Amino acid sequence: MEDKIKSGYLYDFYGELLTERQRSVYEMSINEDLSLSEIADTLSISRQAVHDIIKRCDHQLQEYEDKLHLVDKFMNIREDVLKINKLTSSEPGKDTLAEISRLSTLILEEL
Amino acid sequence: MEDKIKSGYLYDFYGELLTERQRSVYEMSINEDLSLSEIADTLSISRQAVHDIIKRCDHQLQEYEDKLHLVDKFMNIREDVLKINKLTSSEPGKDTLAEISRLSTLILEEL
Repeated sequence: MEDKIKSGYLYDFYGELLTERQRSVYEMSINEDLSLSEIADTLSISRQAVHDIIKRCDHQLQEYEDKLHLVDKFMNIREDVLKINKLTSSEPGKDTLAEISRLSTLILEEL
Repeated sequence: MEDKIKSGYLYDFYGELLTERQRSVYEMSINEDLSLSEIADTLSISRQAVHDIIKRCDHQLQEYEDKLHLVDKFMNIREDVLKINKLTSSEPGKDTLAEISRLSTLILEEL
């Protein structure tokens, strides 16, 4: 996964476990796509401090994922649901429903 | 949700964030369904200590859920996937696929 996209997912899942301070810096970087210098200027702190905070956030979020694997789990489910969604545009026959049945059973096992 | 089932889900999701000690006590209670006295005997600690550890685990797991809402999210997705799975046993027609399409789109929005 592309790094910024992955950071975004990790943040969506575990962001609430960071401190408010960490979250505000991280959101400027991830959601508003500001540069380190822009964030530093906004908060009147050094570019290095911004860099350190973001790196620490990345590390903490990745640590949560290493323990819980919930982003991974949800990504797998998402892929299978996308396949189901795509199948609903195909010919409405028994084969289509059998494949949707197989995929939905897979998801239920994962959940 | 029944309390023990709910505790089980919370533990499945966030259990890895507890300490090893907490996990071993909690698993005896939740997975092996031992009584407080049985756990206390096994670990040679007081019944009160076991009670406190379990209560603290419940509290911590609930705190994670209050912040992250991932069990909630997952339960909603599970319900919709169950509906999809059920629909695959019905008449293979356009209406069935349209309803599966609607449900899978809902899930993708949630994910």
